[in-house]
Amino acid sequence: MKSITALQKARYAYLPKLPSALMQDVKNVVAVKGSATESFADQQAIKQLFPHTYGQPIVSFESGASSATFNPIKVGVILSGGQAPGGHNVIAGLYDGLKKANPQSQLFGFLGGPSGLLEAKYLEVTDSLMDEYRNTGGFDMIQSGRTKLESSEQFDLVLENAQKLSLDALVVIGGDDSNTNGAVLAEYFKAKNSSIQVIGCPKTIDGDLKNQFIETSFGFDTAAKTYSELIGNIARDAMSARKYWHFIKLMGRSASHIALECALQTRPNVTLISEEVEAKQMTLADVVQEIAHSVMKRAEKGWNFGIVLIPEGLVEFIPEIKALIAKLNDMMSEKADEFGAIELEKQPEWVHAQLDAKSAEVYASLPRDIQFQLILDRDPHGNVQVSLIETEKLLSKMVASYLEKAKAEGKYKGKFAPLGHFFGYEGRCAFPSNFDADYCYSLGYTSFLLIANGMTGYISSLRELQRPASEWVAGGIPLTMMMNMERRHGEMKPVIRKALVELNGKPFQYFAHVREKWAVENDFAYPGAIQYYGPTEVCDQTSITLGLEKSK
Amino acid sequence: MKSITALQKARYAYLPKLPSALMQDVKNVVAVKGSATESFADQQAIKQLFPHTYGQPIVSFESGASSATFNPIKVGVILSGGQAPGGHNVIAGLYDGLKKANPQSQLFGFLGGPSGLLEAKYLEVTDSLMDEYRNTGGFDMIQSGRTKLESSEQFDLVLENAQKLSLDALVVIGGDDSNTNGAVLAEYFKAKNSSIQVIGCPKTIDGDLKNQFIETSFGFDTAAKTYSELIGNIARDAMSARKYWHFIKLMGRSASHIALECALQTRPNVTLISEEVEAKQMTLADVVQEIAHSVMKRAEKGWNFGIVLIPEGLVEFIPEIKALIAKLNDMMSEKADEFGAIELEKQPEWVHAQLDAKSAEVYASLPRDIQFQLILDRDPHGNVQVSLIETEKLLSKMVASYLEKAKAEGKYKGKFAPLGHFFGYEGRCAFPSNFDADYCYSLGYTSFLLIANGMTGYISSLRELQRPASEWVAGGIPLTMMMNMERRHGEMKPVIRKALVELNGKPFQYFAHVREKWAVENDFAYPGAIQYYGPTEVCDQTSITLGLEKSK
Repeated sequence: MKSITALQKARYAYLPKLPSALMQDVKNVVAVKGSATESFADQQAIKQLFPHTYGQPIVSFESGASSATFNPIKVGVILSGGQAPGGHNVIAGLYDGLKKANPQSQLFGFLGGPSGLLEAKYLEVTDSLMDEYRNTGGFDMIQSGRTKLESSEQFDLVLENAQKLSLDALVVIGGDDSNTNGAVLAEYFKAKNSSIQVIGCPKTIDGDLKNQFIETSFGFDTAAKTYSELIGNIARDAMSARKYWHFIKLMGRSASHIALECALQTRPNVTLISEEVEAKQMTLADVVQEIAHSVMKRAEKGWNFGIVLIPEGLVEFIPEIKALIAKLNDMMSEKADEFGAIELEKQPEWVHAQLDAKSAEVYASLPRDIQFQLILDRDPHGNVQVSLIETEKLLSKMVASYLEKAKAEGKYKGKFAPLGHFFGYEGRCAFPSNFDADYCYSLGYTSFLLIANGMTGYISSLRELQRPASEWVAGGIPLTMMMNMERRHGEMKPVIRKALVELNGKPFQYFAHVREKWAVENDFAYPGAIQYYGPTEVCDQTSITLGLEKSK
Repeated sequence: MKSITALQKARYAYLPKLPSALMQDVKNVVAVKGSATESFADQQAIKQLFPHTYGQPIVSFESGASSATFNPIKVGVILSGGQAPGGHNVIAGLYDGLKKANPQSQLFGFLGGPSGLLEAKYLEVTDSLMDEYRNTGGFDMIQSGRTKLESSEQFDLVLENAQKLSLDALVVIGGDDSNTNGAVLAEYFKAKNSSIQVIGCPKTIDGDLKNQFIETSFGFDTAAKTYSELIGNIARDAMSARKYWHFIKLMGRSASHIALECALQTRPNVTLISEEVEAKQMTLADVVQEIAHSVMKRAEKGWNFGIVLIPEGLVEFIPEIKALIAKLNDMMSEKADEFGAIELEKQPEWVHAQLDAKSAEVYASLPRDIQFQLILDRDPHGNVQVSLIETEKLLSKMVASYLEKAKAEGKYKGKFAPLGHFFGYEGRCAFPSNFDADYCYSLGYTSFLLIANGMTGYISSLRELQRPASEWVAGGIPLTMMMNMERRHGEMKPVIRKALVELNGKPFQYFAHVREKWAVENDFAYPGAIQYYGPTEVCDQTSITLGLEKSK
């Protein structure tokens, strides 16, 4: 038995597709520049903060004589933040571009994310190392990490380590925060008269790094398909056994793109979208009622089973719970000693007595184990760990209570047996779908072209992703262009705006149009496992979200 | 957006492979009979209980002139028990065989499992209905159920309903219990001078219906591959993030075949095998120590992450926990009223005081939330619901305590951050792998041939499954041949022996040989999603368990 599986071996042989403009000698690819750009908002403030990198033009790569020289260069690369399928292919595209242009060029992978840059921990990427990771999932080649590069002390250290290695450029593969930090680093290097270039690549399964120039972040397609496989399998189980309501929580703290995409793929009975819950100022009782509505309607048809999708961050978007959590955080840090002296079993009652009337009422409405979760599982700063709250259990228990009352009032005669699931780690390191494998390789290859053409403070971009890969448009977008000013930890900061689910966007609008039918009928769809081979409509399609967003 | 996904549409077009002996006109397939058979054990007792169906010969189907007449017949089919990928293909194989032999023949699917037989709820299978379910997962075509057919009142009702429909035969697709009941039903019909034949098909993802004649039950291959996909993805995540220990519980109450197969597919650090735990009379502390051993060894290398696989039924195989559960069941039913009067928070202390010294000690050693789970979540008969015990949390908490002590003694310096998962419903209704699609279709087709040749009390059998489908050997095994006498609910009953993991079998022996290395090294393998297309080594392989069992 070998540790290299049959699929992994077969995937090594996959040749990722590139836009046709890039499928020629690098000398025949020209960088075409547009006119000066402005930031997304707060132009004055951003311009002041980025005097050297603000206003750069959008770049696109087309057929034509390149003005770049292809001397040997040294490039560093880091993977930052949570894993997303395809990260290795970004490195492969960058590596292949570098070596194709000049075999003397070198690529260094910093280990464990940004901390590898600070600690000068790295390895040189070689052919044999690269070949072990082509078209595979995970970030295990150089690992990842969550250290944030924000302070000037850190920037100095990065500069020092980069100079020691004689780096010409650094590629930061990360989400909105990491790319924001990349933009600041690019500006910092320029301000320090360093010629080291910084290029970003849009990574996150959450799908919340996107805008008119970044059509999707990589990994979203594969992760959402993996979760949809499982949700579809569970829905088919529910249709067969006809006895359970499955409450399925899905990764995605800030944005509900994953839940929405999975809903479009599998057509569950109820899907909660955090952005809508917040916009409508829904209470926990409203959310419970929405689920119970579906349960009761279906019970009338004799169907005591169904599927509910819940985004991981939901509770933070319910205003009254958000307020309760804020109160708990404040109160627990103020009265830590007093709290510590309370006997375990009496803690919920003590907490209840400390809260204001509104928060106390909300706290009292929660099932007892959730009351305990809110006070016991705190992070080192004493804050409630929202990611550990078992929202799927919280909701199913409250729905059960709601149904008991409805039954007592003669309004409901069904049976309600809920089961909980949480999917996140199952999809972040899947073998990238053909779409993500191609997209990532193209992102990496494009990041090389941006470096070769002297750009800094750019993010690698592929557009027209709804078309076949050969027709994609490769280029670079100035990172400052995607920025605005937002309050973070009490200070106004320049950041890349996080893309939440837009309630007037086409994906949500489609969902809103059909969900009442889905709530009541058995309209489930079963996507099955991601296919890397077979008919093109099975193995080469991208997300429904992207398809709807790009539809006329 | 359609509810029929691209994969489902593509799978409709898949033509399941049959053994070459069956790929000809039914008139050219002859039933070759061996000599009289004996039951697996307790021959006298089984013979007495099955006077009409005991001792029948093994049958195999070969090329040759059939002696069967192919008059129009009516056949009923039921799906019994938990879902397993491929159930629809068994029905498809049966349906196609029936219609090929005589287009006037009819197939009736009884709805919701055995209860459909009792309540005469059924539908007639038609071409268009069948085509909606070919090569799909789930049992949703006619659903399944867990009603057991055991009493003579039930048998009379089944006979009455079958006669009303003028059924010639009944195919029972189920696990060991359902096939045992099928054997009893076949005998009962004979005893009542009914000519209605009964044929079984071996179904269960648990893999515990197998013996020298039944090489594997259907669904095991697909379910284990689906879980292995997820375990591999999580292992890759662990290798990338390098900060979590994932405790993964896998379906399989009685037997640990799934955990073992997933271990062979993914090479996790620790895999617990219930049968070994019982054979070695391991205590909970022993199990905790086995896991902690791996955690500590890996921490010495700086690897504070890993994967632990836990079979769902583990706690029932730990003798001291099994004893505790039995005591709790007795005590809680004896003292139900007294218990009901105890305030919630004081229940664990009350329970503790009622137990004998040994059980009290074990109970006290458990984390508090598990203490609550053991007394709160009881079934309608007042018994502890073992399937609801969160064994993954129980073990990770106890390992954490163990490590805290080791740290205090200076024996461990690592960090331990565990996460729990439970996989079961995710795999029971996946689209069947090519192996399961072919195997199930062949089982169904063979069940038709057994009917056409006048057999009853047989189970459909395909052998030499390690070879390509064209070389499989199709036939039938008398159900009585797989039986012995076992004590069930205090009475000796004739039953098909459940196949547990054999500790001297090749799959376990291989695992035992390599596991110490896996415990310490990063030897993970990443199988990825089930592929239905592509290179044959990617999409046509069956389980490693079967491969090892059939190896010389």
